[in-house]
Amino acid sequence: MLNAVENQSPHRVVIVGGGFGGLYAAKALRHAPMNITLVDKRNFHLFQPLLYQVATGTLSPADISSPLRSILKRHHNTKVLMGEVIDIDPTARKVILRNEELDYDSLIVATGVSHHYFGNDHWETVAPGLKTVEDALSMRRRIFMAFEAAEKETDPEKRRAWLTFVLVGGGPTGVELAGAIAELAYSTLKTDFRNINTAEAQILLLEGMDRILPPYAPELSAQAEASLKRLGVTVQTKTMVTNIADDVVTTKQGNHIVQIPAKTILWAAGVKASPIAEVLSKRLEAQLDRVGRVIVEPDLSIPGHPDVFVVGDLASFSHQNGKPLPGVAPVAMQEGEYIAALLQQRLEGKELPPFRYVDRGSLAVIGRNAAVVDLGFIKFSGFLAWLVWVFVHIFYLIEFDNKLIVMLQWGWNYFTRKRGARLITGEEELLQVAPSPNSDYFVPATNKSVVEVNQLSPSTGG
Amino acid sequence: MLNAVENQSPHRVVIVGGGFGGLYAAKALRHAPMNITLVDKRNFHLFQPLLYQVATGTLSPADISSPLRSILKRHHNTKVLMGEVIDIDPTARKVILRNEELDYDSLIVATGVSHHYFGNDHWETVAPGLKTVEDALSMRRRIFMAFEAAEKETDPEKRRAWLTFVLVGGGPTGVELAGAIAELAYSTLKTDFRNINTAEAQILLLEGMDRILPPYAPELSAQAEASLKRLGVTVQTKTMVTNIADDVVTTKQGNHIVQIPAKTILWAAGVKASPIAEVLSKRLEAQLDRVGRVIVEPDLSIPGHPDVFVVGDLASFSHQNGKPLPGVAPVAMQEGEYIAALLQQRLEGKELPPFRYVDRGSLAVIGRNAAVVDLGFIKFSGFLAWLVWVFVHIFYLIEFDNKLIVMLQWGWNYFTRKRGARLITGEEELLQVAPSPNSDYFVPATNKSVVEVNQLSPSTGG
Repeated sequence: MLNAVENQSPHRVVIVGGGFGGLYAAKALRHAPMNITLVDKRNFHLFQPLLYQVATGTLSPADISSPLRSILKRHHNTKVLMGEVIDIDPTARKVILRNEELDYDSLIVATGVSHHYFGNDHWETVAPGLKTVEDALSMRRRIFMAFEAAEKETDPEKRRAWLTFVLVGGGPTGVELAGAIAELAYSTLKTDFRNINTAEAQILLLEGMDRILPPYAPELSAQAEASLKRLGVTVQTKTMVTNIADDVVTTKQGNHIVQIPAKTILWAAGVKASPIAEVLSKRLEAQLDRVGRVIVEPDLSIPGHPDVFVVGDLASFSHQNGKPLPGVAPVAMQEGEYIAALLQQRLEGKELPPFRYVDRGSLAVIGRNAAVVDLGFIKFSGFLAWLVWVFVHIFYLIEFDNKLIVMLQWGWNYFTRKRGARLITGEEELLQVAPSPNSDYFVPATNKSVVEVNQLSPSTGG
Repeated sequence: MLNAVENQSPHRVVIVGGGFGGLYAAKALRHAPMNITLVDKRNFHLFQPLLYQVATGTLSPADISSPLRSILKRHHNTKVLMGEVIDIDPTARKVILRNEELDYDSLIVATGVSHHYFGNDHWETVAPGLKTVEDALSMRRRIFMAFEAAEKETDPEKRRAWLTFVLVGGGPTGVELAGAIAELAYSTLKTDFRNINTAEAQILLLEGMDRILPPYAPELSAQAEASLKRLGVTVQTKTMVTNIADDVVTTKQGNHIVQIPAKTILWAAGVKASPIAEVLSKRLEAQLDRVGRVIVEPDLSIPGHPDVFVVGDLASFSHQNGKPLPGVAPVAMQEGEYIAALLQQRLEGKELPPFRYVDRGSLAVIGRNAAVVDLGFIKFSGFLAWLVWVFVHIFYLIEFDNKLIVMLQWGWNYFTRKRGARLITGEEELLQVAPSPNSDYFVPATNKSVVEVNQLSPSTGG
């Protein structure tokens, strides 16, 4: 193609991923004289920070999702394409999808991260993580199935294992899940069963570092721990998970090794980069960090490729204080908006100073009335923090009808302590996991697959 | 066990199935001096009449479901058990579940029906029906995937097949689905796509009888047909489906055979009894009707087994006007309540006259502003009928929070014409059905599996 022709046609931007990073880039480019294509494997944007409420039966997936086409329907310069990127050709400037190719002048990669099991990928089937709608529905099934199975179980030891919930990882996701499960067991479900007392359930939150919520200020970690304890959660810090097998979690606290029989083990302990990072490493010689995220320049581009940017959880940006920015929604949003501004400036021949993340604070919720808030200049917890948390989460829900529904659901749940969305759904086979009183669940733990985990990092995800 | 002891312990009632029949029996027995166990494969009651709204992206599964335990939590004489009945022993009076057994004095079977493909069970994978939450989510995935695939397709003929939706069966479910898909294509999604004009979508409703909604009065069928046509639906009556294969539906209207290329084929044409009917036939010598439903006595018991009752869609009750009562929610509710009354009378040594169904009318909705209502003494259609339909459906939603959420969703959708719940979800493989521009979808239809269907009965389900 002739250069002259190329210069006349609008600048083509391809955005891969419709999470916070990609979507906020697309939104900020609404009036730019460009041709924008947003590619995502899914047809919706997911508000991941509330995914734990789907997993614990408060919200439905649609309450925290918005169709990408509907969000961007009035962006006349923007096309939405449902598809999966399998390769990138930086020389021809092409993004290769499974069945088609897209030309780009600028490329924004924002495909995020998935769970990381520190080399123990076989743990995924027994200790699922929480990143997708399907993950959340699978967690929901496990949690509510455990109570159903306990109700049927006559052996007290096995019943105890069904009523033991282990959360691996004391980051925001682990803390929020633990609080929500505690409320389920000790409040919502209390009068629903006839054979079991759900208040006998044990909820364990395991964290490798010396306190939960390690990125927060120490006093907030302490307050969060106190709130969780009030809710009935057992918090164990400095605790590594060394094995998960045969419905037993093996933990190591110093030299103290403990085996915990538990039927429900949920993973909130680590993330790894999505597969596209490997493509960027191979095709664009991008450098990856320890968990596979793409190390970016101060302007979020890949070294040597000023037209290819990585934003959100997939980017490893260490130019601000030496360590990578956390994988949270506000970072992704600001990065997406930064690239949108940069591209518009570039089109006018101007430059933008390097990206700087403005940390407006951190939030985590612990049950119905308590949260911790760290705004930098002020830190607080309790009911007021909970109100701040509610307000912020409603505010950032993309579409107005979601805000309405979620607000109503929360209001309703708050006053009634009910959870309407506790359906156990899935394929037929998945609904058959209830126990037989005759089978033996507790195969003695063999050491055949014991693996030592050096460091149980907290989730960098929300 | 000694008779004396047995007389002292409360009468044990086992109810199999938590649909309208089983649940209304349980609810009516709330204060009865009995031990009641409600067994269901699922942990929730599903409001099936609104399932088509999940399939078309208006509501979420949780909006039309209520946990059985939560509905019955204050019924202190009632236990809920999640499990699947695989056998019944009428001599020992035992219900055999997969992993346990339940003793009964009275047994109520209310397990309903599933789809019937008139001997063409292989059609199920290409033309799914609508009975469970999973069915609805799978339909939702197919419908919205079809628009995504059309958006990518460059061949106009293949694109037309992606935009062709065929509904087999002109009963209430087929009519309601057709109306909802027409609204999606011609209104909700109109500005969402860039390459396709969704208004070019074709929605075909096929019915074997000479009019849609055959159980209704002829003038209402005509009004429903007129409303559907106004919405853009093509209605074909006296049309049999003779084959479904290779993305082509073969229809026969008189001697006229037509092949319709269509990627989305939805089944609303027939029902068959759930497998437990076979158990009742084998163990209790119950007689089954043409579609496998259990033929019951005037008191809904099985002949020769005065303590075993069948209610709801699974029962074939013909004592009122010679033909079986229709498989709709009001019949199931009234039958469930009748058995509850009968058991309580029996406990006091009294008898109840035979069951009589009080038909309070029929309803079907056709899109956003129109419905047909047949109350027997008065028949009407249009906006007023739609308001009646809205009111009745809200009223019968079991729990108050569902009523609230559904009302809000409907109100919101009504004024904005939006549909927030149009997520495409499912296992990874299912999300890969989008077309490749190079592959050929239209394998020429071979006659290898052409089967003639004698009669395309309308769905007896809601």
